[in-house]
This record gives sequence, structure tokens and C-alpha cells, in this order.
Amino acid sequence: MPNRLKPGDRIEIVSPASSITVDKVALAMTQLQEWGFRVTLSDHALDHTEYLAGPDEHRAADLQHAFDDPDVAAVFCSRGGYGCARLFPYLDLDRIAATGKPFLGFSDITTLHLALNRRGLITYHAPMPLTLSRERETWVLESLRAALAGENPFHPAAPRGQTVIGGRAVGRLTGGCLCLVTDSVGTPDAIQTEGRIVLIEDVDENPHRVDAMLTQLLNTGLAQAAAGFVIGEMTGTDTREDASIGRRPWREIVTERLAPLGKPMVFEYPFGHNSAMLTLPMGAMVEFDADAGTLRLMEDSA
Amino acid sequence: MPNRLKPGDRIEIVSPASSITVDKVALAMTQLQEWGFRVTLSDHALDHTEYLAGPDEHRAADLQHAFDDPDVAAVFCSRGGYGCARLFPYLDLDRIAATGKPFLGFSDITTLHLALNRRGLITYHAPMPLTLSRERETWVLESLRAALAGENPFHPAAPRGQTVIGGRAVGRLTGGCLCLVTDSVGTPDAIQTEGRIVLIEDVDENPHRVDAMLTQLLNTGLAQAAAGFVIGEMTGTDTREDASIGRRPWREIVTERLAPLGKPMVFEYPFGHNSAMLTLPMGAMVEFDADAGTLRLMEDSA
Repeated sequence: MPNRLKPGDRIEIVSPASSITVDKVALAMTQLQEWGFRVTLSDHALDHTEYLAGPDEHRAADLQHAFDDPDVAAVFCSRGGYGCARLFPYLDLDRIAATGKPFLGFSDITTLHLALNRRGLITYHAPMPLTLSRERETWVLESLRAALAGENPFHPAAPRGQTVIGGRAVGRLTGGCLCLVTDSVGTPDAIQTEGRIVLIEDVDENPHRVDAMLTQLLNTGLAQAAAGFVIGEMTGTDTREDASIGRRPWREIVTERLAPLGKPMVFEYPFGHNSAMLTLPMGAMVEFDADAGTLRLMEDSA
Repeated sequence: MPNRLKPGDRIEIVSPASSITVDKVALAMTQLQEWGFRVTLSDHALDHTEYLAGPDEHRAADLQHAFDDPDVAAVFCSRGGYGCARLFPYLDLDRIAATGKPFLGFSDITTLHLALNRRGLITYHAPMPLTLSRERETWVLESLRAALAGENPFHPAAPRGQTVIGGRAVGRLTGGCLCLVTDSVGTPDAIQTEGRIVLIEDVDENPHRVDAMLTQLLNTGLAQAAAGFVIGEMTGTDTREDASIGRRPWREIVTERLAPLGKPMVFEYPFGHNSAMLTLPMGAMVEFDADAGTLRLMEDSA
């Protein structure tokens, strides 16, 4: 598991993808400070260039520096959006993974989770400063705090998943935001699914795109290789206004595409773009009980 | 080159992706009949199930049967939308490719072009019955008619591409609709770009998704392997209403991502979702002159 933070340790907020304003991170900074951490913003964390938080070189330099700086204990992404996949030419991912520092985020940050998990760093699929500002349920905050402290983030008060296909599986957690998962395919930092428990969620995708991305996972064999599927939600898919070629509820699409594989699968697991969410240790060994709708951490904390 | 059609030959219209109504194919059927061909609709060509033109088994059976039936001389897709990638488990693509029959379509049909080009069949990226109903420029119709007749479809009256990076390249044509190109990555029917001239167009993509897909082509090395890029248009990208994370004109995005590779590249080549379009022989050897903005067929006709 990643390094365990102590009171007084410093958390650096970085923006490797899209831009954010300081008012959107203020509440999260206050929360992290209340837990006893120092919180800093990286040099370019508030920069803004079209859909990116500034040029690739600056976003990458901030990310790399946060890992390289011995005074920084954890690296927290301010938000997703888009941009992480552009950073690969500028990053030393092996050096980043070797630090063992907790790295937190979700959505576009999926791209970096997959790349770092490949290199042996367990990372946290976690609410971000942008989303923390609207997620104040106790178990959400407790799960995040536990992860930072090196404790078990699977808080017992979190909602359970709903069984689609029952059964149990043990494997490392992978996946995340579906379009970033499929964007990774064919690259040196592609998702690895063999024997793994695959998380899937996404936002604002048209129904047929959810189908297309799951079909790519089938046509590549990546879905067949997985040990199980933990589905969060496809936020906004069922109400897309421009679903011009036809609608179908996303749960029907996911069931039709993935259920025939017969792997343990749940819906409504608490993570995604509109869920109060658990902080999930990507790359860690977990036991997935699809009957109970639960994940259980099998790694020892650091 | 594919088989050459003669007057009286039969063209079968199939719907391997999304659904269509008969009024949308009527004008195209009349046009094909005026050229002397018999035109038939496959059994399930007008079926409709959510965003698909009926179940996979039916769409695949229609497609396979059109190729297998010795009375059918050419297979014309009614429209794109979504659905071709779902058909792979049900098709004998080697048997289809061995028929040598002209196969026509674009958009979602990109998926089948890539799979058939891999198997040695040259296929036609062509206006479809749905789009032919609004494309009545003489050179559009002449290019399509020439392709069916086994003549040169690069009509001299078509607009030329606009030079982005000058130079010449010789290679086979590949590519098509960008999201289907990236959906193919990692599958047994993935795009092959090595030494090839890559066509790119798409419709209704958010600006950051155009960036993400081109970035996937860079992160996989597929873009670097190409011999040149022929860009049609990204229809609707610059005016997307839900470009929530920020805008950037698509020509800037494509230039920023691909121009540093230094390969011959043009914009505004006449194909895509809002262009009067040439019928383009996918898989055929062409000479690409990015200074003149032209493609020239190097294959002998059948």
C-alpha cells in the first residue's frame, strides 16, 4: 500500500487535466487542513488554456515535481476533465511509482492510475477537491481520511452494490472511467484486466457509446480476461439530449454486453460522477463478493 | 480493385448499424436504378431496435447473405450510426473478402472497411443512401457511379484539400471515422497505419474527445507509423453545446497533435459527415500530393 500520512504531512494539489478555480478547491483544502495536513497548490494548479489547465509541459512538471519533492507526502488531483493522456512524453512514471506516495483522483485521472498501477504503485480512485465540495457524507470523508492515513478505506457505512451476477472473485482492482480505459488500449500504459476486478463508470456518454466501448473491451478480449465487474454509474447517459440514433437504458446495455461472460458483477457500487463515493485502492488485491455487493481489502496497510 | 458492375447487376442495400426508414433510401434506390442496376433491400434492412437496425444476428445474416448470394453484385450500407463492431462474432470475414464484391458506406461502416481491407478486399468509403438523399452534386454521383463501374472514382471536379504540411506519399488508404478507428485499436480487426495514408473525419465529437482520440493514435504509435493524413471534417465539433470543459477549434487541435509528425497533411478533403464526398477506395494504393491537395489512384481497375 502507499505511504501512510501523519499529521503535519503536506498534500500537494495538482491539475494534470482540465482547469479549476480556487473557490472550487477551498472546501477540500479546509477539510484536509482540519485533518491536520498541510495543503499546497502546485505552481500551475489554477492555470487555464482552453480545456486544459495550462500547457502539457507545465502540468507534467507540476505532477513530476510533487512526486520528486521530498517535502510532499501525497499528490491530490484537483479535478479530471481531460488531459492526462497528453502527459506521457513528459513524465518519469517509474520514478513517480517508486516514491510510494498516495496519488488520488478519478475520471480523467484513470489514465494515470492505469499507468502507475502497471508500475506497482497502488493509487486511490477518490473524490477530488472539485467533487468533495459537494460530497459531505460522513463515510465519504472517512474513507478518504482512512486512505491517507494508511487505514482500510472500505467504510462499512457505504452503500453496497446490487447483484447482477453473483459469485466471488479475488484480484487486483483496475478500471475507472470507461472512456479513459478504452483510450488506454493499445498504448504502453494500457489497462491490464487478466484476473482483475474491473471498475467501470462514466459521465455524459451517449447510450451507443457505452455499447461501443464495452464492445471494444469484448473485441479485444479484455472483458473476457477480467475476474469480475464492479459498475458505478453512467451518469447522464439515460437522459442525453443528443442520443440521436436511439436510446436504451445503460443498465440494459451493460447487462447485455457483460452478463453473458458469467463473471461476478454488481451495479450501483458507490463511485462515479454523481455518487457519494468510496476511496478505492487501484492496483490493490481485493476480495469481491458480488452476492453481498462488497469489496474487501486483502493487502496489509503500509 | 473490387469487381466491376455491369448494367442489370444487382445492388443489395443492408443496414449493419443503425436503422433507416424506406423514405430515406428511396432517392438513392431511384438513382442506382437510373444507372441501370437492380436494387434490393435485405430482409432486415428496415428493422429497428433502439439504436440498432434489429438484433446482431439479423444484421449479420443480412450482410453475410448479401456477399454469399451469387445474384448480388455489390453491397451498399444504408447508413452508419452504430452497430458494426457488434457483428464480428457472427461474420465470416474471409469469405466476404474473397467475393471481391464492392462494399460501400462510411461512418460506423469504417469498422467493416478496416476488417475487410486487412483481408485484402478494397472497399469504398462512399456516400450512403441516407446521405445521398442530400448530396446531388454531379461529381459526387459521378464518383460513386465510377466506383461501381470499376472506373477511377477520383473525379477531377471535386474540391482539393488544403495543404497543412506539404509533400508527397504513396501508400494504401485507410482510416475513416475517427471514433471507429480508435474503437478498433487492440482488436484483431484494428486499423493498420504502417506506411498508409490515413483518412480522418468524425461527427458530433466534443473538442477534447477529438484531442483524446488523436492522442491515443500518438500514444499507440499508430500516428507516427502513418505516411500521411487526409482530414475531412469534424462536423459539429466547433459548435458543440455541451463542450463543458472548454472549447478549441478542431483544426487547431488536429494541427497541434499531428503536424509535429511532419507527414504530408491536408484539411478539407471532400469526405465526411457534412461534405459532398468522393467515393474513396479504402485499401487501394494511392499517391497523396499534399501540395496539390489531391489523391491519385495507383491500382489498375478490375
